[in-house]
Amino acid sequence: MQRYFIDKFQLNNNIIEITNSDVHHIKNVMRMKIGDNVYCCDEDKVYLCKINEISDIITLEVIEVISSNSELDIEVSIAQGLVRREKTEEVIRRLTELGCYKYIPVMMRRSIVKAKDDKSDRYNRIIKEASEQSQRNKLMIVNDILSFKDFIKLKNDYDLLLYAHVSEEKNSFKNIVNDFKGKKILILVGPEGGYDPVEVELLDKNGFKRISLGERILRTETAPLYIMSVLSYEFGEEKWK
Amino acid sequence: MQRYFIDKFQLNNNIIEITNSDVHHIKNVMRMKIGDNVYCCDEDKVYLCKINEISDIITLEVIEVISSNSELDIEVSIAQGLVRREKTEEVIRRLTELGCYKYIPVMMRRSIVKAKDDKSDRYNRIIKEASEQSQRNKLMIVNDILSFKDFIKLKNDYDLLLYAHVSEEKNSFKNIVNDFKGKKILILVGPEGGYDPVEVELLDKNGFKRISLGERILRTETAPLYIMSVLSYEFGEEKWK
Repeated sequence: MQRYFIDKFQLNNNIIEITNSDVHHIKNVMRMKIGDNVYCCDEDKVYLCKINEISDIITLEVIEVISSNSELDIEVSIAQGLVRREKTEEVIRRLTELGCYKYIPVMMRRSIVKAKDDKSDRYNRIIKEASEQSQRNKLMIVNDILSFKDFIKLKNDYDLLLYAHVSEEKNSFKNIVNDFKGKKILILVGPEGGYDPVEVELLDKNGFKRISLGERILRTETAPLYIMSVLSYEFGEEKWK
Repeated sequence: MQRYFIDKFQLNNNIIEITNSDVHHIKNVMRMKIGDNVYCCDEDKVYLCKINEISDIITLEVIEVISSNSELDIEVSIAQGLVRREKTEEVIRRLTELGCYKYIPVMMRRSIVKAKDDKSDRYNRIIKEASEQSQRNKLMIVNDILSFKDFIKLKNDYDLLLYAHVSEEKNSFKNIVNDFKGKKILILVGPEGGYDPVEVELLDKNGFKRISLGERILRTETAPLYIMSVLSYEFGEEKWK
């Protein structure tokens, strides 16, 4: 069934009002009628709803509250050296499915592409679609493109700071994951060209720990999927106990 | 440096002879000259080689044996209900990077596509390219398309049989992985349309255990990457100890 993402303020006394672009989607794309059912999700819950009114806004009545929360208990932000748009789209789609909280593109020295015009509309469409398909409660956030300097400044917002780096010395991701007791993780993945030594120095100096992602060299667009799969596996099963 | 995959019989007394399509690649694509260096890999080792002779065959001399093995100690075969060619290619590329041993396409009841002409040349090119980039020692094998019946018959070749399935009841992948002591794992992922009840019955009857891949619904092309990332993470770090 179709799934729409709402903010808590849109729900009052069992009635949900939709006023954004979803109005168009419900009316003209899905061609729904009064009485049709959809799911609405806020951050915590999923609501089975019946459409009550279709005009410039859509009014829905909550029929049943389904206490399903498919979100991880931790918040994972994945930062990545700026890569080509098609790769970014692919990464955003998969990270959404895998439960990532926020995606942060970072301008790095060896990024081949330059920061271009804002693609956030397109990214948000991909995220909405992937969230519906994967039945998430929250929409993944895409951050504005950050300079490397601004990226480093994020360090105070997180409980754990990591960066994935191919090196002779192997640093266990597993040990770090198993010791983690906090809530918010920030992990950086380099661009195709890898890290500049200056960037590595800055990361080390600012408390980012280096991790290895196995014995093989992963492409920059595969590394985020590896990380997010592993974290979903390590932290997602907790709820089933 | 360029990396070529050889069989053990091609190496004798420190000399490697290349006679397959890599001859064309070395001569005409890479335009290499006598004295140039390349890596050759067999299942266990990587050899730094110098080109000694370029004719209808290429003869190389081993300069240094590098005892690097980027392969997992376990063998993971991932089977998947037949999906569209572009998706198959994407999955094959990523599974190669992530260290998968064998990919097995399976004709399932809800597969949208039909088994078509043989794409193995194309798949093998993708695998070679991804193996070079990710620095694998072995080339991933792509099985011929199997009927579901023939797929089930594979059960005797493996130490662990699993299938990924979305269901109310969650079955911990982690517990199964942690208890695993064998070498060969076979895991099935359904096609876009999911499993037919008859297939589920057959899987259960033949000793395949059901696993859940987290709280969210993964697309059929994301599920293999999740599985292979997790297994690489769980079994790949062993070597660093």
